[in-house]
Amino acid sequence: MIKLREAEQLAMHLARQSGRILLENLHKIEITHMKDKGDFCTNLDIKVEKLIIDAIKGRYPGHDIISEELGELGKKSDYTWVIDPIDGTKNFVKDIPLFTISIALQYKDELVLGVVFNPSTHHMYHAYKGHGAWLNNNRIYVSKTSKLDISYIYLDITKIHNLPKKEVKEALKRLDRMITESYRVRALGVGSLGMCFLAQGAYDVYFDLTGKTKYVDIAAGSVIVKEAGGYVSDLHDKTISKKTKHLLASNALLHGRIMKLLTGI
Amino acid sequence: MIKLREAEQLAMHLARQSGRILLENLHKIEITHMKDKGDFCTNLDIKVEKLIIDAIKGRYPGHDIISEELGELGKKSDYTWVIDPIDGTKNFVKDIPLFTISIALQYKDELVLGVVFNPSTHHMYHAYKGHGAWLNNNRIYVSKTSKLDISYIYLDITKIHNLPKKEVKEALKRLDRMITESYRVRALGVGSLGMCFLAQGAYDVYFDLTGKTKYVDIAAGSVIVKEAGGYVSDLHDKTISKKTKHLLASNALLHGRIMKLLTGI
Repeated sequence: MIKLREAEQLAMHLARQSGRILLENLHKIEITHMKDKGDFCTNLDIKVEKLIIDAIKGRYPGHDIISEELGELGKKSDYTWVIDPIDGTKNFVKDIPLFTISIALQYKDELVLGVVFNPSTHHMYHAYKGHGAWLNNNRIYVSKTSKLDISYIYLDITKIHNLPKKEVKEALKRLDRMITESYRVRALGVGSLGMCFLAQGAYDVYFDLTGKTKYVDIAAGSVIVKEAGGYVSDLHDKTISKKTKHLLASNALLHGRIMKLLTGI
Repeated sequence: MIKLREAEQLAMHLARQSGRILLENLHKIEITHMKDKGDFCTNLDIKVEKLIIDAIKGRYPGHDIISEELGELGKKSDYTWVIDPIDGTKNFVKDIPLFTISIALQYKDELVLGVVFNPSTHHMYHAYKGHGAWLNNNRIYVSKTSKLDISYIYLDITKIHNLPKKEVKEALKRLDRMITESYRVRALGVGSLGMCFLAQGAYDVYFDLTGKTKYVDIAAGSVIVKEAGGYVSDLHDKTISKKTKHLLASNALLHGRIMKLLTGI
């Protein structure tokens, strides 16, 4: 077993270094290709991804990697690094300070380390298994909210257009329920930050409404949420994996209540 | 007529000064009273509000003031300052870097100056009539998006529970339409920033879904949007005032299209 503290140090170092590069190049961004009609990849996604992957390969040569732009590299190690070089590329391009570098480490089937860094605000969220969740040097905890009618729900509403009609209908029904039963809903379009804000107690629930969230967006955040005292599963209380649809994360207290609200459709 | 450039300088100075106080006191926040079951006012809202009002009274003794916590002060001048000392108090309390100080100036019936400052990221948005919209020292412009299916819509979904049933139904129907017809929806819970992100071209439309947005939240932002080339009205293309329900702002190109989508219910 590698030392998680050392792996965390490396991940934090790489996230900071990447963040510096992103902010320095804010006015030198080029779109390299479109991913769909409204989503794209930039030269900076690629540059930062390469920097992170090269450094991880140098330090942990045998490890596998799953990364946003390059996909899966290697399938033979017990260790897999899960990387999103920029979560919130569209925000980054427009100088909206809502984008992160997100790095996680998985051992066998379990995510054991997560680092999410918002370079615009120097918010460094980090956690590894058994060591608690941290925002910079302060321990963070999920909220104690146990009532749905004062809860804040973070929603990921990605790519609803790509769903079959039946699933769109189901998603909209779930959305209506959450809006009317919770206190407020939020949608930032940056899953990694949504998870961190849940870990920090600002939101009480995180739900992937369309089932289209990418694993690289929420892998690091899910470790941070768990170590902050939260609970992470899919909609049917199964452990998450890269095949998970409909990630559901919460402060633990509201998990059963919200699962019931969303599945009894 | 007062010099708007001087008034803008004062507003920016006060916003920066307030921002410094907020960040310095991040760990000394006290909740003074609840505004409803999930909303509250803090000692810092009150402290910063007093600082801004005192300074404005000192420099412009005859002017009226509308402020988030204190309400309307005076009703006799052609000039009215419209102040939200903290937009996003709940975020501020939780160390989420999504809160602003928002200061606007109205001359007779027209908003003529707006300043929105995000102290966590040093993003200072400012505009006065005829002089363009600015983010720090850079001129900003709304997007050129003319197609709804690649548009980003910012939604304010405040206080849906306070609406009569019929209006809730109408709001949810509008929401469904926007989610399925646009590219993405966003909801940050900070109206002033939503307006600025529209002015900056990151979002294409801003809509107040429940008609509960406060004038103090969007007054400054609406000047910034207009000066960035955008269009601001209510749902029926009327000029906005403090009585406006359902503020609709856009990059101008999408205004007619979105108005049709929202009113043909």
